[in-house]
Amino acid sequence: MSKVLPKRSDDYSLWYNELVKRADLAENAPVRGCMIIKPYGYSIWEKMQAVLDKMFKETGHSNAYFPLFIPKSYLSKEASHIDGFAKECAVVTHYRLKNDENGKGIIVDPEAKLDEELIVRPTSETVIWNTYKTWIQSHRDLPLLINQWANVVRWEMRTRLFLRTTEFLWQEGHTAHATKQEAIVETEQMMNVYATFAQNFMALPVHRGIKSANERFAGAEETYCIEALMQDGKALQAGTSHFLGQNFAKAFDVKFASKEGSLEYVWGTSWGVSTRLMGALIMAHSDDEGLVLPPLLAPIQVVIVPIFKTAEQLDLIEATLKPILAALKAKDISVKFDHSDKYSPGFKFAEYELKGVPLRVAIGARDIENGTVELARRDTKEKTTVPQEGLADTIEKLLQEIQENIYKKAFAYREANTFVADDYTTFKTMLDETPGFILAHWDGTPETEEKIKEETKATIRCIPLDVTSEPGICMVTGKPSAQRVLFARAY
Amino acid sequence: MSKVLPKRSDDYSLWYNELVKRADLAENAPVRGCMIIKPYGYSIWEKMQAVLDKMFKETGHSNAYFPLFIPKSYLSKEASHIDGFAKECAVVTHYRLKNDENGKGIIVDPEAKLDEELIVRPTSETVIWNTYKTWIQSHRDLPLLINQWANVVRWEMRTRLFLRTTEFLWQEGHTAHATKQEAIVETEQMMNVYATFAQNFMALPVHRGIKSANERFAGAEETYCIEALMQDGKALQAGTSHFLGQNFAKAFDVKFASKEGSLEYVWGTSWGVSTRLMGALIMAHSDDEGLVLPPLLAPIQVVIVPIFKTAEQLDLIEATLKPILAALKAKDISVKFDHSDKYSPGFKFAEYELKGVPLRVAIGARDIENGTVELARRDTKEKTTVPQEGLADTIEKLLQEIQENIYKKAFAYREANTFVADDYTTFKTMLDETPGFILAHWDGTPETEEKIKEETKATIRCIPLDVTSEPGICMVTGKPSAQRVLFARAY
Repeated sequence: MSKVLPKRSDDYSLWYNELVKRADLAENAPVRGCMIIKPYGYSIWEKMQAVLDKMFKETGHSNAYFPLFIPKSYLSKEASHIDGFAKECAVVTHYRLKNDENGKGIIVDPEAKLDEELIVRPTSETVIWNTYKTWIQSHRDLPLLINQWANVVRWEMRTRLFLRTTEFLWQEGHTAHATKQEAIVETEQMMNVYATFAQNFMALPVHRGIKSANERFAGAEETYCIEALMQDGKALQAGTSHFLGQNFAKAFDVKFASKEGSLEYVWGTSWGVSTRLMGALIMAHSDDEGLVLPPLLAPIQVVIVPIFKTAEQLDLIEATLKPILAALKAKDISVKFDHSDKYSPGFKFAEYELKGVPLRVAIGARDIENGTVELARRDTKEKTTVPQEGLADTIEKLLQEIQENIYKKAFAYREANTFVADDYTTFKTMLDETPGFILAHWDGTPETEEKIKEETKATIRCIPLDVTSEPGICMVTGKPSAQRVLFARAY
Repeated sequence: MSKVLPKRSDDYSLWYNELVKRADLAENAPVRGCMIIKPYGYSIWEKMQAVLDKMFKETGHSNAYFPLFIPKSYLSKEASHIDGFAKECAVVTHYRLKNDENGKGIIVDPEAKLDEELIVRPTSETVIWNTYKTWIQSHRDLPLLINQWANVVRWEMRTRLFLRTTEFLWQEGHTAHATKQEAIVETEQMMNVYATFAQNFMALPVHRGIKSANERFAGAEETYCIEALMQDGKALQAGTSHFLGQNFAKAFDVKFASKEGSLEYVWGTSWGVSTRLMGALIMAHSDDEGLVLPPLLAPIQVVIVPIFKTAEQLDLIEATLKPILAALKAKDISVKFDHSDKYSPGFKFAEYELKGVPLRVAIGARDIENGTVELARRDTKEKTTVPQEGLADTIEKLLQEIQENIYKKAFAYREANTFVADDYTTFKTMLDETPGFILAHWDGTPETEEKIKEETKATIRCIPLDVTSEPGICMVTGKPSAQRVLFARAY
């Protein structure tokens, strides 16, 4: 395998696929469309999970676990849900294998056929709302604020590591409320939690908005989302939060006795982010040398590479580093001191660059003499020589700076690649020549949206809540439009 | 639903089932044999996970994620593995549903049949060793120390919440080594990690030992285990660690170039614990009033219940508690201050008793006057009045004492219910009259073991590594026996 990554400018898609594999993030599984998340990739996902889980708990949610299998009949209880999810899913029909009598190895035992087929969950609304029916009796049981970390399966035809896989890992929040207003507040709150996570931890600027009817979750009354822009000018939906109205409550007959004693249907929400975020993180920041990770999600924040020829030199370096390592540990900065002699310093430099370690410290004989080390930032590739004295403080500040810089860079990229189109011809030219977000007027109808999608492959990413816009006229039909919406070609 | 739990002495099995439901730990899912882990139950599992995960990482393991589905053909690659696992498993045969043209709702689309059926993983050796084939080339790639937290499915006929469910949550470690000796050391290390976890966190004394050939993992050369004793005198296998020899390396052709340049098969291990540990935790310590949780795994370690009639009284109590709550928080003690006025203090006392909160603090008007609070231990049911001054220290010490006491009690129970039988008649009488562990001599053959199992339902739990024993003669056949082995009826 060649050590040189493809360049983004040559083939962005190939660059991404190769980067995911070479940086030891993930690889394709033997089962079509499934992935194996490798230890280094998984350790980034674990960091994401830890931060999100804390944010969910701080907003009052508890984790629980619901079953992997959903009886087929459950899926059809909510009318629009079935259309969105039942079509492409893994179906369990039997529960036993047996040895074939004709010596053909093992076969599915035809006698072990299930009475009702089971669906491997594509999302858990149905099985969860079926449970909420028994958990919710009174207003005292509300709000019910539950989250689940789980694997789900959607039988995708075209798959890509992290971005779209048959099986993926995610969290799905499912909440129930006494009033419509409270459910909407929850839906918006979780969109904001996702936006905060994306911006403050992933260093990823996102637009908050509402999906058009065409792009809405199957079974929701309103879908809120966060949308990010990748370096090839394509958008990526990074998280969704759905206001379910009373749809699932009605489908599964979930009522509560109000304070006044009347029986009412509850109001629901659901919200989720998945291992797709890994794809977003990789594509938003990385460069032709490899991954670029924001320090707050980097499994290794600092790598220290000693430059030595003799065991004595290494001993001296280790003695010098001892108090520095202790000071870094006290600050909860994760450090790898790579003193192995299996590989040369140059090889190590390239490897940690590929893996996106935010800060590299090199220390050799001359540094020992001078009381210095060499620092190299992954984001800007700047190298500086700094004193060993106060190094932990220097590093702590630098990591903050790197985190901020990565965000600023991504933000500047998005700003530079967000355009305004007033007519459809300009819109189409922009999509091809300067791919990015396009703010344009749309008449609000599914038909016009569908026409645009068919003709340009661009979709309405969201009706943005964070972009102020004048009313105008639809670029396609000339009908009135209340505000500009955000278009892009998307992952 | 009656608020009174069944008594253990009346119906231990019913007591367990009811306790699991009433303490909000888990309930049956609509899919046969599957469970829903409720938030309170899940929060205990999360505490277990956090401790174990830390122990795995401290011993050099990294987490990764492998796919849910295993191609059917993989299962038969390791000869004995297929017999152990393929028989009762969930089989995915189709990937699409469709609307039935005769209006019968949705049906499985016969045209969307998979070329090769997929098995929902019952354990992941096959898919993981298939991957290791590409990950391992050289001795530099070894040891490979991977763990995965995942759901698995085994189509069990008779199921019980936590103890035996069709789907369960677990971790499975899968490691590869250059030498047999190193793999055996790993296998033993992980058994010891499990034993340490069981004893120091679950407060559960366990025997460490080796399984007989009959009870060995399908595909292993040796299975190590930890075995605990429940309050009804039945044993429970709480964790297993398998030395796989080169079985999976040969089945999946996993070889490495040694330092000397020769190509050799690697040596493997696998090891796992599951949500079954929840069953062990519940059954080992709880009583007729409800759960008893060791403080180190209790989601709520201390509950504070204010006794008040007026808002002014509550204000005064809150002001008094403020510095105490801060001091407890500083010590990382998890506290719930339940000041809700929905329920009476008596109701709350019963509820937290049912849920196994280790320590209850009650504080009322008289306590405010006297500068005291009332402490009630869940384990011993002792109540004491103690000064508010230094309360956080008092509580910290008490929690340690409770943790130790729960272990001591379980240890004393096990000692009192471990017997020695020298002849088969005594053995059988003991099983019925004084159920517990029985140390007895066995001739080492699968036939004798099978005969004992058929006639008494007792199995060899393990050949204990931690019980010294003289050689003797088998209680059934009179043939020589190197040491006594541990028998019991088991879950």
